[in-house]
Amino acid sequence: MSADAAYQGAPGAFSEDAAQALLGGGLDLLPCARFVHVFDAVESGRARFGVVPIENTVAGSVQPVHDLLADRELCIMAETVVRVAHALVGVPGSRAHEIRQVLSHPVALAQCESFFRSRPEVEPVPVYDTAGAVLQVVGEGRRHRAASASRRAAALHGGMVLAEGLEDDPANFTRFLLLSPEAEARASAGHGFKTSLIMTVPHQPGALCAALRVFAARGLDLLKIESRPLRGRPFEYSFWLDVAGHAEDPPVAEALMALEEQSGGVRVLGSYRRADEGVPRGK
Amino acid sequence: MSADAAYQGAPGAFSEDAAQALLGGGLDLLPCARFVHVFDAVESGRARFGVVPIENTVAGSVQPVHDLLADRELCIMAETVVRVAHALVGVPGSRAHEIRQVLSHPVALAQCESFFRSRPEVEPVPVYDTAGAVLQVVGEGRRHRAASASRRAAALHGGMVLAEGLEDDPANFTRFLLLSPEAEARASAGHGFKTSLIMTVPHQPGALCAALRVFAARGLDLLKIESRPLRGRPFEYSFWLDVAGHAEDPPVAEALMALEEQSGGVRVLGSYRRADEGVPRGK
Repeated sequence: MSADAAYQGAPGAFSEDAAQALLGGGLDLLPCARFVHVFDAVESGRARFGVVPIENTVAGSVQPVHDLLADRELCIMAETVVRVAHALVGVPGSRAHEIRQVLSHPVALAQCESFFRSRPEVEPVPVYDTAGAVLQVVGEGRRHRAASASRRAAALHGGMVLAEGLEDDPANFTRFLLLSPEAEARASAGHGFKTSLIMTVPHQPGALCAALRVFAARGLDLLKIESRPLRGRPFEYSFWLDVAGHAEDPPVAEALMALEEQSGGVRVLGSYRRADEGVPRGK
Repeated sequence: MSADAAYQGAPGAFSEDAAQALLGGGLDLLPCARFVHVFDAVESGRARFGVVPIENTVAGSVQPVHDLLADRELCIMAETVVRVAHALVGVPGSRAHEIRQVLSHPVALAQCESFFRSRPEVEPVPVYDTAGAVLQVVGEGRRHRAASASRRAAALHGGMVLAEGLEDDPANFTRFLLLSPEAEARASAGHGFKTSLIMTVPHQPGALCAALRVFAARGLDLLKIESRPLRGRPFEYSFWLDVAGHAEDPPVAEALMALEEQSGGVRVLGSYRRADEGVPRGK
Protein backbone atom coordinates (compact mmCIF):
# COMPACT_ATOMS: atom_id res chain seq x y z
CA MET A 1 0.00 0.00 0.00
CA SER A 2 1.38 3.39 -0.87
CA ALA A 3 1.37 6.55 1.27
CA ASP A 4 -0.67 9.57 0.22
CA ALA A 5 2.39 11.83 0.11
CA ALA A 6 6.12 11.86 0.83
CA TYR A 7 7.85 14.92 2.32
CA GLN A 8 11.31 15.81 3.57
CA GLY A 9 11.79 16.14 7.31
CA ALA A 10 10.44 14.63 10.50
CA PRO A 11 6.81 14.87 11.70
CA GLY A 12 6.18 18.51 12.67
CA ALA A 13 8.12 19.82 9.65
CA PHE A 14 6.70 22.79 7.73
CA SER A 15 6.46 20.41 4.73
CA GLU A 16 3.91 18.38 6.69
CA ASP A 17 1.79 21.54 7.17
CA ALA A 18 2.06 22.07 3.42
CA ALA A 19 0.95 18.49 2.67
CA GLN A 20 -2.17 19.01 4.80
CA ALA A 21 -2.91 22.36 3.13
CA LEU A 22 -2.56 20.73 -0.31
CA LEU A 23 -4.32 17.41 0.27
CA GLY A 24 -6.43 17.80 3.42
CA GLY A 25 -6.23 16.12 6.84
CA GLY A 26 -6.17 12.43 7.79
CA LEU A 27 -3.33 11.65 5.40
CA ASP A 28 -0.96 8.72 5.44
CA LEU A 29 2.34 10.63 5.11
CA LEU A 30 5.84 9.29 4.45
CA PRO A 31 8.63 11.36 6.10
CA CYS A 32 11.93 11.22 4.16
CA ALA A 33 15.44 12.15 5.31
CA ARG A 34 16.40 14.01 2.13
CA PHE A 35 14.76 15.67 -0.89
CA VAL A 36 16.09 12.99 -3.25
CA HIS A 37 14.21 10.34 -1.24
CA VAL A 38 10.92 12.21 -1.79
CA PHE A 39 11.48 12.01 -5.57
CA ASP A 40 12.46 8.32 -5.27
CA ALA A 41 9.32 7.54 -3.23
CA VAL A 42 6.97 9.14 -5.81
CA GLU A 43 8.74 7.58 -8.81
CA SER A 44 8.70 4.10 -7.26
CA GLY A 45 5.02 4.38 -6.28
CA ARG A 46 5.69 4.22 -2.52
CA ALA A 47 3.89 7.56 -2.30
CA ARG A 48 1.22 8.94 -4.62
CA PHE A 49 2.41 12.57 -4.31
CA GLY A 50 5.51 14.43 -3.19
CA VAL A 51 5.52 17.75 -1.30
CA VAL A 52 8.68 19.89 -1.57
CA PRO A 53 9.61 23.51 -0.74
CA ILE A 54 10.62 25.56 -3.81
CA GLU A 55 11.31 29.03 -2.38
CA ASN A 56 11.26 31.04 0.81
CA THR A 57 10.49 34.77 0.84
CA VAL A 58 13.57 35.54 2.98
CA ALA A 59 16.18 32.92 2.09
CA GLY A 60 15.27 32.53 -1.62
CA SER A 61 15.13 29.49 -3.88
CA VAL A 62 15.61 25.97 -2.54
CA GLN A 63 18.35 25.06 -5.02
CA PRO A 64 18.51 21.25 -4.61
CA VAL A 65 14.78 20.98 -5.38
CA HIS A 66 15.25 22.93 -8.62
CA ASP A 67 17.98 20.47 -9.68
CA LEU A 68 15.87 17.43 -8.80
CA LEU A 69 12.90 18.82 -10.77
CA ALA A 70 15.22 19.31 -13.78
CA ASP A 71 16.85 15.86 -13.51
CA ARG A 72 13.69 13.84 -12.83
CA GLU A 73 10.36 13.56 -14.66
CA LEU A 74 7.78 14.60 -12.04
CA CYS A 75 5.08 17.19 -12.81
CA ILE A 76 3.89 20.10 -10.69
CA MET A 77 0.20 19.70 -9.79
CA ALA A 78 -0.39 22.51 -7.28
CA GLU A 79 1.30 24.96 -4.92
CA THR A 80 0.62 26.35 -1.47
CA VAL A 81 2.20 29.05 0.68
CA VAL A 82 2.92 28.36 4.37
CA ARG A 83 3.71 31.02 6.99
CA VAL A 84 7.01 30.05 8.66
CA ALA A 85 7.41 31.09 12.32
CA HIS A 86 10.51 29.88 14.16
CA ALA A 87 10.47 29.21 17.89
CA LEU A 88 13.54 28.53 20.02
CA VAL A 89 12.91 25.01 21.31
CA GLY A 90 15.00 23.61 24.18
CA VAL A 91 14.85 20.63 26.51
CA PRO A 92 12.22 20.85 29.27
CA GLY A 93 13.57 22.91 32.17
CA SER A 94 16.18 24.81 30.11
CA ARG A 95 16.32 28.64 29.93
CA ALA A 96 16.81 30.88 26.88
CA HIS A 97 19.95 32.55 28.32
CA GLU A 98 21.70 29.17 28.71
CA ILE A 99 21.53 28.36 24.98
CA ARG A 100 24.88 28.32 23.14
CA GLN A 101 23.96 26.31 20.01
CA VAL A 102 20.86 26.39 17.82
CA LEU A 103 20.25 23.48 15.44
CA SER A 104 18.10 23.84 12.31
CA HIS A 105 17.96 23.52 8.53
CA PRO A 106 20.45 25.93 6.84
CA VAL A 107 17.57 27.76 5.12
CA ALA A 108 15.86 28.19 8.53
CA LEU A 109 19.11 29.45 10.09
CA ALA A 110 19.46 31.96 7.24
CA GLN A 111 16.01 33.31 8.13
CA CYS A 112 17.20 34.09 11.68
CA GLU A 113 20.37 36.06 10.83
CA SER A 114 19.48 39.06 13.09
CA PHE A 115 18.92 36.74 16.07
CA PHE A 116 22.43 35.31 15.67
CA ARG A 117 23.97 38.76 15.13
CA SER A 118 22.39 40.07 18.33
CA ARG A 119 23.62 37.03 20.31
CA PRO A 120 27.19 36.34 19.18
CA GLU A 121 27.64 33.74 21.95
CA VAL A 122 25.08 31.52 20.16
CA GLU A 123 26.37 29.31 17.34
CA PRO A 124 24.06 28.21 14.48
CA VAL A 125 24.46 24.49 13.71
CA PRO A 126 23.11 23.23 10.36
CA VAL A 127 21.18 19.94 10.33
CA TYR A 128 18.81 18.41 7.74
CA ASP A 129 15.46 19.63 9.04
CA THR A 130 13.71 21.80 11.60
CA ALA A 131 11.52 19.19 13.30
CA GLY A 132 14.44 16.71 13.24
CA ALA A 133 16.48 19.32 15.13
CA VAL A 134 13.88 19.23 17.94
CA LEU A 135 14.07 15.42 18.02
CA GLN A 136 17.87 15.62 18.28
CA VAL A 137 17.89 18.32 20.97
CA VAL A 138 15.28 16.53 23.11
CA GLY A 139 17.00 13.15 22.59
CA GLU A 140 20.41 14.49 23.66
CA GLY A 141 18.99 16.38 26.65
CA ARG A 142 21.72 19.04 26.79
CA ARG A 143 20.52 22.33 28.29
CA HIS A 144 22.80 24.56 26.17
CA ARG A 145 21.40 23.25 22.86
CA ALA A 146 18.12 24.31 21.26
CA ALA A 147 16.39 23.91 17.90
CA SER A 148 14.81 26.54 15.67
CA ALA A 149 11.49 24.99 14.63
CA SER A 150 7.70 25.37 14.76
CA ARG A 151 5.61 25.34 17.97
CA ARG A 152 3.93 22.22 16.54
CA ALA A 153 7.27 20.39 16.24
CA ALA A 154 8.05 21.37 19.86
CA ALA A 155 4.72 20.00 21.09
CA LEU A 156 5.00 16.77 19.04
CA HIS A 157 8.48 15.88 20.27
CA GLY A 158 8.42 17.08 23.89
CA GLY A 159 10.50 20.23 23.43
CA MET A 160 9.94 23.45 25.39
CA VAL A 161 9.38 26.80 23.62
CA LEU A 162 11.94 29.26 25.09
CA ALA A 163 11.31 32.17 22.69
CA GLU A 164 9.25 32.94 19.60
CA GLY A 165 9.65 35.00 16.44
CA LEU A 166 13.32 34.15 15.80
CA GLU A 167 12.86 34.99 12.11
CA ASP A 168 14.28 38.32 10.82
CA ASP A 169 11.18 39.25 8.94
CA PRO A 170 7.53 38.51 9.80
CA ALA A 171 6.85 38.27 6.02
CA ASN A 172 8.44 34.82 6.12
CA PHE A 173 6.63 32.38 3.84
CA THR A 174 7.66 29.19 2.07
CA ARG A 175 6.06 28.14 -1.20
CA PHE A 176 5.61 24.36 -1.57
CA LEU A 177 4.85 22.27 -4.67
CA LEU A 178 2.73 19.15 -5.02
CA LEU A 179 4.42 16.67 -7.39
CA SER A 180 3.11 13.59 -9.17
CA PRO A 181 4.34 11.28 -11.93
CA GLU A 182 1.73 12.42 -14.43
CA ALA A 183 0.24 15.76 -15.36
CA GLU A 184 -3.47 16.06 -14.64
CA ALA A 185 -5.93 17.20 -17.24
CA ARG A 186 -6.82 20.85 -16.76
CA ALA A 187 -8.97 21.13 -13.64
CA SER A 188 -10.76 24.33 -14.54
CA ALA A 189 -10.50 27.24 -16.92
CA GLY A 190 -10.09 30.93 -16.25
CA HIS A 191 -7.83 33.20 -14.30
CA GLY A 192 -5.42 32.48 -11.50
CA PHE A 193 -3.13 29.87 -13.06
CA LYS A 194 0.63 29.90 -13.53
CA THR A 195 2.90 27.76 -15.68
CA SER A 196 6.41 26.67 -14.65
CA LEU A 197 9.01 25.91 -17.31
CA ILE A 198 12.73 25.36 -17.78
CA MET A 199 14.48 26.74 -20.85
CA THR A 200 17.98 26.99 -22.24
CA VAL A 201 18.90 29.84 -24.57
CA PRO A 202 21.75 30.18 -27.09
CA HIS A 203 24.98 31.52 -25.52
CA GLN A 204 24.98 34.91 -27.32
CA PRO A 205 24.22 38.57 -26.53
CA GLY A 206 20.51 39.33 -26.29
CA ALA A 207 19.38 35.68 -26.27
CA LEU A 208 17.73 35.83 -22.84
CA CYS A 209 16.13 39.16 -23.69
CA ALA A 210 14.73 37.68 -26.93
CA ALA A 211 13.30 34.71 -25.02
CA LEU A 212 11.61 36.95 -22.44
CA ARG A 213 10.23 39.18 -25.23
CA VAL A 214 8.14 36.17 -26.36
CA PHE A 215 6.12 36.57 -23.16
CA ALA A 216 6.23 40.38 -22.89
CA ALA A 217 4.94 40.74 -26.47
CA ARG A 218 1.81 38.82 -25.45
CA GLY A 219 1.30 40.80 -22.23
CA LEU A 220 2.12 37.71 -20.12
CA ASP A 221 3.36 38.50 -16.64
CA LEU A 222 6.66 36.87 -15.64
CA LEU A 223 6.22 35.93 -11.97
CA LYS A 224 9.69 34.52 -11.35
CA ILE A 225 12.99 33.91 -13.11
CA GLU A 226 15.77 31.80 -11.69
CA SER A 227 19.05 30.63 -13.21
CA ARG A 228 20.65 27.26 -12.49
CA PRO A 229 24.09 26.11 -13.66
CA LEU A 230 24.28 23.67 -16.59
CA ARG A 231 26.25 20.57 -15.64
CA GLY A 232 29.57 20.19 -17.44
CA ARG A 233 29.27 23.68 -18.99
CA PRO A 234 30.88 26.04 -16.46
CA PHE A 235 29.23 29.47 -16.26
CA GLU A 236 26.36 28.57 -18.60
CA TYR A 237 22.84 28.39 -17.22
CA SER A 238 19.31 27.11 -17.67
CA PHE A 239 16.46 29.47 -16.76
CA TRP A 240 13.38 28.71 -14.70
CA LEU A 241 10.34 30.80 -15.46
CA ASP A 242 6.96 31.07 -13.79
CA VAL A 243 4.55 32.76 -16.20
CA ALA A 244 0.99 33.87 -15.38
CA GLY A 245 -1.55 31.74 -17.27
CA HIS A 246 -2.27 28.11 -18.14
CA ALA A 247 -0.20 26.32 -20.81
CA GLU A 248 -3.44 25.62 -22.69
CA ASP A 249 -4.48 29.32 -22.74
CA PRO A 250 -3.90 30.55 -26.32
CA PRO A 251 -1.38 33.34 -25.49
CA VAL A 252 0.72 31.02 -23.28
CA ALA A 253 0.52 28.16 -25.81
CA GLU A 254 1.63 30.53 -28.59
CA ALA A 255 4.49 31.87 -26.48
CA LEU A 256 5.69 28.33 -25.74
CA MET A 257 5.64 27.48 -29.47
CA ALA A 258 7.60 30.64 -30.32
CA LEU A 259 10.09 29.88 -27.56
CA GLU A 260 10.55 26.32 -28.82
CA GLU A 261 11.45 27.71 -32.26
CA GLN A 262 14.00 30.27 -31.12
CA SER A 263 15.62 28.74 -28.06
CA GLY A 264 17.68 25.67 -27.29
CA GLY A 265 14.94 23.82 -25.44
CA VAL A 266 11.80 24.23 -23.35
CA ARG A 267 10.21 21.88 -20.84
CA VAL A 268 6.89 22.64 -19.15
CA LEU A 269 6.80 21.36 -15.56
CA GLY A 270 3.12 22.07 -15.01
CA SER A 271 0.24 24.55 -14.97
CA TYR A 272 -1.48 25.02 -11.62
CA ARG A 273 -3.52 27.45 -9.58
CA ARG A 274 -1.54 30.35 -8.07
CA ALA A 275 -1.19 30.60 -4.29
CA ASP A 276 1.30 33.49 -4.20
CA GLU A 277 -1.30 36.25 -4.44
CA GLY A 278 -2.91 37.86 -1.44
CA VAL A 279 -0.05 36.90 0.90
CA PRO A 280 0.07 39.60 3.61
CA ARG A 281 2.95 42.06 3.43
CA GLY A 282 5.49 42.69 6.20
CA LYS A 283 6.15 46.02 7.92
CA MET B 1 47.70 45.68 12.59
CA SER B 2 45.17 44.45 10.10
CA ALA B 3 45.25 41.15 8.16
CA ASP B 4 45.67 41.16 4.38
CA ALA B 5 42.39 39.33 3.85
CA ALA B 6 39.53 37.65 5.74
CA TYR B 7 37.86 34.47 4.44
CA GLN B 8 35.22 32.04 5.66
CA GLY B 9 36.41 28.62 6.81
CA ALA B 10 39.41 27.04 8.49
CA PRO B 11 42.96 26.97 7.06
CA GLY B 12 42.91 24.62 4.07
CA ALA B 13 39.54 25.95 2.85
CA PHE B 14 39.04 26.54 -0.88
CA SER B 15 38.59 30.24 0.02
CA GLU B 16 42.20 30.29 1.20
CA ASP B 17 43.31 28.98 -2.22
CA ALA B 18 41.26 31.78 -3.77
CA ALA B 19 42.88 34.43 -1.53
CA GLN B 20 46.31 33.28 -2.67
CA ALA B 21 45.24 33.29 -6.33
CA LEU B 22 43.88 36.84 -5.94
CA LEU B 23 46.57 38.43 -3.77
CA GLY B 24 49.67 36.21 -4.01
CA GLY B 25 51.49 34.10 -1.42
CA GLY B 26 52.92 35.05 1.99
CA LEU B 27 49.66 36.61 3.14
CA ASP B 28 48.50 37.31 6.66
CA LEU B 29 45.01 35.75 6.45
CA LEU B 30 42.12 35.95 8.92
CA PRO B 31 39.91 32.80 8.99
CA CYS B 32 36.27 33.55 9.96
CA ALA B 33 33.55 31.16 11.14
CA ARG B 34 30.79 32.65 8.98
CA PHE B 35 30.36 34.84 5.88
CA VAL B 36 28.94 37.71 7.94
CA HIS B 37 32.18 37.82 9.95
CA VAL B 38 34.18 38.32 6.74
CA PHE B 39 32.09 41.40 5.93
CA ASP B 40 32.42 42.65 9.54
CA ALA B 41 36.22 42.20 9.44
CA VAL B 42 36.61 44.24 6.23
CA GLU B 43 34.21 47.00 7.34
CA SER B 44 35.92 47.36 10.72
CA GLY B 45 39.40 47.44 9.18
CA ARG B 46 40.57 44.21 10.82
CA ALA B 47 41.22 42.94 7.29
CA ARG B 48 42.07 44.95 4.19
CA PHE B 49 40.17 42.66 1.82
CA GLY B 50 37.52 39.96 2.00
CA VAL B 51 37.42 36.80 -0.14
CA VAL B 52 34.02 35.11 -0.60
CA PRO B 53 32.57 32.43 -2.92
CA ILE B 54 29.78 33.73 -5.16
CA GLU B 55 28.85 30.69 -7.30
CA ASN B 56 29.75 27.09 -7.95
CA THR B 57 29.36 25.51 -11.40
CA VAL B 58 27.50 22.49 -9.95
CA ALA B 59 25.61 23.76 -6.88
CA GLY B 60 24.84 27.28 -8.16
CA SER B 61 24.81 30.66 -6.44
CA VAL B 62 25.99 31.07 -2.86
CA GLN B 63 22.82 32.79 -1.67
CA PRO B 64 23.94 34.24 1.72
CA VAL B 65 26.83 36.04 0.01
CA HIS B 66 24.42 37.68 -2.45
CA ASP B 67 22.33 38.97 0.47
CA LEU B 68 25.37 40.29 2.34
CA LEU B 69 26.61 42.12 -0.78
CA ALA B 70 23.17 43.73 -1.11
CA ASP B 71 22.87 44.67 2.58
CA ARG B 72 26.44 45.96 3.06
CA GLU B 73 28.52 48.55 1.20
CA LEU B 74 31.57 46.59 0.01
CA CYS B 75 32.79 46.77 -3.59
CA ILE B 76 33.93 43.95 -5.87
CA MET B 77 37.59 44.44 -6.91
CA ALA B 78 38.41 41.18 -8.70
CA GLU B 79 37.35 37.57 -9.22
CA THR B 80 39.08 34.22 -9.56
CA VAL B 81 37.95 30.70 -10.40
CA VAL B 82 39.19 27.75 -8.31
CA ARG B 83 38.93 24.09 -9.31
CA VAL B 84 37.16 22.24 -6.49
CA ALA B 85 38.15 18.58 -5.97
CA HIS B 86 36.71 16.74 -2.98
CA ALA B 87 38.60 13.97 -1.24
CA LEU B 88 37.13 11.65 1.39
CA VAL B 89 39.24 12.42 4.46
CA GLY B 90 39.14 10.09 7.47
CA VAL B 91 41.14 9.63 10.66
CA PRO B 92 44.55 7.96 10.18
CA GLY B 93 44.11 4.20 10.02
CA SER B 94 40.45 4.28 8.94
CA ARG B 95 39.17 2.57 5.77
CA ALA B 96 36.77 3.87 3.12
CA HIS B 97 34.27 1.00 3.59
CA GLU B 98 33.92 1.81 7.33
CA ILE B 99 32.62 5.34 6.71
CA ARG B 100 28.96 5.95 7.65
CA GLN B 101 28.91 9.78 7.91
CA VAL B 102 30.54 12.44 5.73
CA LEU B 103 30.82 15.98 7.12
CA SER B 104 31.14 19.01 4.85
CA HIS B 105 29.66 22.35 3.83
CA PRO B 106 26.11 21.92 2.39
CA VAL B 107 27.26 23.29 -0.99
CA ALA B 108 30.11 20.74 -1.01
CA LEU B 109 27.71 17.91 -0.10
CA ALA B 110 25.43 19.01 -2.95
CA GLN B 111 28.37 18.59 -5.34
CA CYS B 112 28.74 14.92 -4.30
CA GLU B 113 25.11 13.80 -4.80
CA SER B 114 26.03 10.76 -6.96
CA PHE B 115 28.49 9.54 -4.33
CA PHE B 116 25.74 9.55 -1.69
CA ARG B 117 23.23 7.94 -4.05
CA SER B 118 25.63 5.08 -4.81
CA ARG B 119 26.33 4.53 -1.09
CA PRO B 120 22.97 4.79 0.72
CA GLU B 121 24.57 3.60 3.98
CA VAL B 122 26.56 6.86 4.11
CA GLU B 123 24.83 9.89 5.62
CA PRO B 124 25.82 13.45 4.57
CA VAL B 125 26.19 15.75 7.61
CA PRO B 126 26.18 19.51 6.96
CA VAL B 127 28.74 21.65 8.84
CA TYR B 128 30.01 25.20 8.21
CA ASP B 129 33.11 24.50 6.11
CA THR B 130 35.10 21.83 4.35
CA ALA B 131 38.46 22.27 6.11
CA GLY B 132 36.67 22.67 9.46
CA ALA B 133 35.04 19.29 8.80
CA VAL B 134 38.54 17.71 8.61
CA LEU B 135 39.50 19.40 11.91
CA GLN B 136 36.33 18.02 13.53
CA VAL B 137 36.76 14.48 12.15
CA VAL B 138 40.43 14.29 13.17
CA GLY B 139 39.69 15.85 16.59
CA GLU B 140 36.90 13.35 17.34
CA GLY B 141 38.92 10.37 16.10
CA ARG B 142 35.89 8.22 15.16
CA ARG B 143 36.65 5.74 12.35
CA HIS B 144 33.15 5.81 10.84
CA ARG B 145 33.22 9.57 10.23
CA ALA B 146 35.00 11.32 7.36
CA ALA B 147 35.07 14.80 5.83
CA SER B 148 34.67 15.85 2.20
CA ALA B 149 37.45 18.42 1.67
CA SER B 150 40.60 19.17 -0.29
CA ARG B 151 43.82 17.11 -0.17
CA ARG B 152 45.49 20.25 1.21
CA ALA B 153 43.05 20.44 4.14
CA ALA B 154 43.72 16.73 4.85
CA ALA B 155 47.49 17.30 4.89
CA LEU B 156 47.26 20.46 7.04
CA HIS B 157 45.11 18.90 9.74
CA GLY B 158 46.45 15.32 9.89
CA GLY B 159 43.59 13.60 8.04
CA MET B 160 44.02 10.60 5.74
CA VAL B 161 42.76 10.64 2.13
CA LEU B 162 40.55 7.52 1.69
CA ALA B 163 39.19 8.32 -1.78
CA GLU B 164 39.34 11.12 -4.36
CA GLY B 165 37.00 12.67 -6.90
CA LEU B 166 33.85 12.56 -4.77
CA GLU B 167 32.33 15.37 -6.86
CA ASP B 168 29.63 14.45 -9.41
CA ASP B 169 31.15 16.44 -12.20
CA PRO B 170 34.81 17.11 -12.94
CA ALA B 171 33.80 20.56 -14.25
CA ASN B 172 33.45 21.67 -10.63
CA PHE B 173 34.66 25.24 -10.16
CA THR B 174 33.90 27.94 -7.63
CA ARG B 175 34.09 31.62 -8.52
CA PHE B 176 35.37 33.85 -5.70
CA LEU B 177 35.20 37.63 -5.30
CA LEU B 178 37.72 40.01 -3.76
CA LEU B 179 35.92 42.69 -1.72
CA SER B 180 37.12 46.00 -0.32
CA PRO B 181 35.48 49.05 1.27
CA GLU B 182 36.25 51.33 -1.67
CA ALA B 183 36.17 50.93 -5.43
CA GLU B 184 39.56 51.21 -7.07
CA ALA B 185 40.19 53.54 -9.97
CA ARG B 186 40.10 51.64 -13.26
CA ALA B 187 43.23 49.49 -13.45
CA SER B 188 43.45 49.22 -17.21
CA ALA B 189 41.34 49.77 -20.28
CA GLY B 190 40.26 47.36 -22.95
CA HIS B 191 38.55 44.01 -23.21
CA GLY B 192 37.98 41.33 -20.62
CA PHE B 193 36.06 43.25 -17.94
CA LYS B 194 32.67 42.57 -16.43
CA THR B 195 30.36 44.75 -14.32
CA SER B 196 28.16 43.42 -11.50
CA LEU B 197 24.99 45.27 -10.56
CA ILE B 198 21.78 44.87 -8.58
CA MET B 199 18.53 46.28 -9.94
CA THR B 200 14.87 46.33 -9.03
CA VAL B 201 12.24 46.65 -11.75
CA PRO B 202 8.60 47.77 -11.57
CA HIS B 203 6.18 44.94 -10.74
CA GLN B 204 4.41 44.82 -14.13
CA PRO B 205 4.38 42.61 -17.26
CA GLY B 206 7.42 43.11 -19.50
CA ALA B 207 9.42 45.15 -16.95
CA LEU B 208 12.32 42.69 -16.70
CA CYS B 209 12.36 42.26 -20.47
CA ALA B 210 12.51 46.06 -20.92
CA ALA B 211 15.40 46.28 -18.46
CA LEU B 212 17.37 43.55 -20.24
CA ARG B 213 16.68 45.18 -23.62
CA VAL B 214 18.77 48.15 -22.43
CA PHE B 215 21.81 45.86 -22.62
CA ALA B 216 20.77 43.81 -25.67
CA ALA B 217 20.15 46.98 -27.70
CA ARG B 218 23.81 47.93 -27.19
CA GLY B 219 25.13 44.43 -28.00
CA LEU B 220 26.25 43.93 -24.40
CA ASP B 221 26.54 40.30 -23.35
CA LEU B 222 24.64 39.31 -20.20
CA LEU B 223 26.92 36.83 -18.42
CA LYS B 224 24.65 36.00 -15.50
CA ILE B 225 21.24 36.84 -14.08
CA GLU B 226 20.12 35.87 -10.62
CA SER B 227 16.99 36.76 -8.65
CA ARG B 228 16.91 37.33 -4.89
CA PRO B 229 13.78 37.89 -2.76
CA LEU B 230 13.00 41.43 -1.60
CA ARG B 231 12.62 41.58 2.18
CA GLY B 232 9.10 42.31 3.40
CA ARG B 233 7.69 42.02 -0.16
CA PRO B 234 6.79 38.33 -0.57
CA PHE B 235 7.31 36.99 -4.11
CA GLU B 236 8.95 40.17 -5.40
CA TYR B 237 12.61 40.11 -6.38
CA SER B 238 15.75 42.08 -7.05
CA PHE B 239 17.92 41.01 -9.99
CA TRP B 240 21.67 40.53 -10.08
CA LEU B 241 23.31 41.01 -13.44
CA ASP B 242 26.84 40.45 -14.63
CA VAL B 243 27.33 42.33 -17.91
CA ALA B 244 30.40 42.12 -20.18
CA GLY B 245 32.31 45.43 -20.15
CA HIS B 246 33.57 48.08 -17.71
CA ALA B 247 31.10 50.56 -16.15
CA GLU B 248 33.21 53.38 -17.65
CA ASP B 249 33.02 51.96 -21.19
CA PRO B 250 30.58 54.18 -23.16
CA PRO B 251 28.03 51.46 -24.05
CA VAL B 252 27.90 50.13 -20.47
CA ALA B 253 27.74 53.65 -19.00
CA GLU B 254 24.89 54.53 -21.38
CA ALA B 255 23.02 51.32 -20.52
CA LEU B 256 23.34 52.07 -16.80
CA MET B 257 21.96 55.59 -17.32
CA ALA B 258 19.02 54.25 -19.34
CA LEU B 259 18.35 51.61 -16.71
CA GLU B 260 18.42 54.21 -13.94
CA GLU B 261 15.72 56.16 -15.80
CA GLN B 262 13.33 53.28 -16.42
CA SER B 263 13.77 50.99 -13.42
CA GLY B 264 13.23 51.24 -9.69
CA GLY B 265 16.90 51.36 -8.80
CA VAL B 266 20.39 50.30 -9.88
CA ARG B 267 23.52 49.77 -7.80
CA VAL B 268 26.89 48.95 -9.40
CA LEU B 269 28.93 46.59 -7.19
CA GLY B 270 32.10 46.84 -9.26
CA SER B 271 33.87 46.41 -12.61
CA TYR B 272 36.68 43.90 -12.68
CA ARG B 273 38.65 41.62 -14.98
CA ARG B 274 36.81 38.43 -16.00
CA ALA B 275 38.15 35.07 -14.82
CA ASP B 276 35.26 32.92 -16.09
CA GLU B 277 36.56 32.52 -19.63
CA GLY B 278 38.81 29.71 -20.73
CA VAL B 279 37.72 27.42 -17.90
CA PRO B 280 38.03 23.85 -19.23
CA ARG B 281 34.78 22.04 -20.03
CA GLY B 282 33.73 18.72 -18.53
CA LYS B 283 32.99 15.56 -20.46
